[in-house]
Amino acid sequence: MRVRKRKGAEEYIESNPEWVVLEPDAWRGKWHERFKNNHPIHIEVGSGKGRFITEMAKAHPEINYIGIDIQLSVISYALDRVVDTNIENVQLLRVDGSDLTNYFEDGEVDLIYLNFSDPWPKSKHEKRRLTYESFLKTFEKILRPTGELHFKTDNQGLFEYSLASFSKYGMQINQVWLDLHTSNYEGNVMTEYEEKFSNKGQRIYRVEAKFTHRNQMRVK
Amino acid sequence: MRVRKRKGAEEYIESNPEWVVLEPDAWRGKWHERFKNNHPIHIEVGSGKGRFITEMAKAHPEINYIGIDIQLSVISYALDRVVDTNIENVQLLRVDGSDLTNYFEDGEVDLIYLNFSDPWPKSKHEKRRLTYESFLKTFEKILRPTGELHFKTDNQGLFEYSLASFSKYGMQINQVWLDLHTSNYEGNVMTEYEEKFSNKGQRIYRVEAKFTHRNQMRVK
Repeated sequence: MRVRKRKGAEEYIESNPEWVVLEPDAWRGKWHERFKNNHPIHIEVGSGKGRFITEMAKAHPEINYIGIDIQLSVISYALDRVVDTNIENVQLLRVDGSDLTNYFEDGEVDLIYLNFSDPWPKSKHEKRRLTYESFLKTFEKILRPTGELHFKTDNQGLFEYSLASFSKYGMQINQVWLDLHTSNYEGNVMTEYEEKFSNKGQRIYRVEAKFTHRNQMRVK
Repeated sequence: MRVRKRKGAEEYIESNPEWVVLEPDAWRGKWHERFKNNHPIHIEVGSGKGRFITEMAKAHPEINYIGIDIQLSVISYALDRVVDTNIENVQLLRVDGSDLTNYFEDGEVDLIYLNFSDPWPKSKHEKRRLTYESFLKTFEKILRPTGELHFKTDNQGLFEYSLASFSKYGMQINQVWLDLHTSNYEGNVMTEYEEKFSNKGQRIYRVEAKFTHRNQMRVK
């Protein structure tokens, strides 16, 4: 997500350490301590301006949510929402999606959301896509066994790529939606992008997939 | 595919034993003898009026094609095309898709096509869908190891279902097309249905999937 640089974003974030995790390494393996309960932990990798993660947190108080984004200004806008909402089951983490094993212990996460991730359409940029093998490996490590990945996008090419990428990695595709907004899927929480693209008449694609014991046996 | 009953279809078929296999059981394990060569064998389960199978056979003389359909009148229309085309690498087989192990030895088939299969949209009819588990089991048996299944349809619900069904069975999804006719896929041969639905503006979905050694290890 590209947003305008926000003046004072760094100071703003540093003055809200109860919502934005300032020492992410320190919480590896201790997220339940930070949330002060043993509820499941769901993370969104690339949480953008935070609409999805805060709406989900409001709707599901029995789950702890962590929104992850690398961009300072983006996290600062998400912080606006979190501060407004003033709920206890959401945290923001300003780190890179490729380094997640630094911030989560093996099996510490119960579910991962990817929403409207950057499609990186050129073949030479395949490795930057969040559904590329190396990211899946990281996700598999921090997820509990048979943990799920829920992914939605308006980008046809990225969706086609991701279905095959999941399958080749040995993940199991549990359910696919080829037009989410006309389906009978209940409880959908829209992201900022989702609303924008859907209003333009574009289809929203969604998939739920899980890591299985087969992954270890896959043929490269 | 539903077509009007054709008068004299049975006699017509019986008078063309070089194209329509009259004793299918007799050729189990001996298809290469019938084709008089060792070329790969590709079958289409539900070949309808035969446009796809005959066009493919014309375009790929190095492959043997077998079109399979249970309906007498449908096979008779496919026979019209085959007789017209007068090529040696296509055969028609009037049998049920669920009994294919009676007509093909284990591993005898190199590739299976499913095109615009009946969607059977009601949940209670799931077992009749050609991408249901029991059919996949049959396909896996008659296909050579890592043999592929190529499936296309205009039916969104059947395509969503089939992707998950393949994956749950332990098949690997190699490639997905969510709008075949606007993609850069080359050499597409349209079926009768495909042309009709595409002209109405409907998207055509396509997937290539393969059976893997993982199938034997799958968890039910």
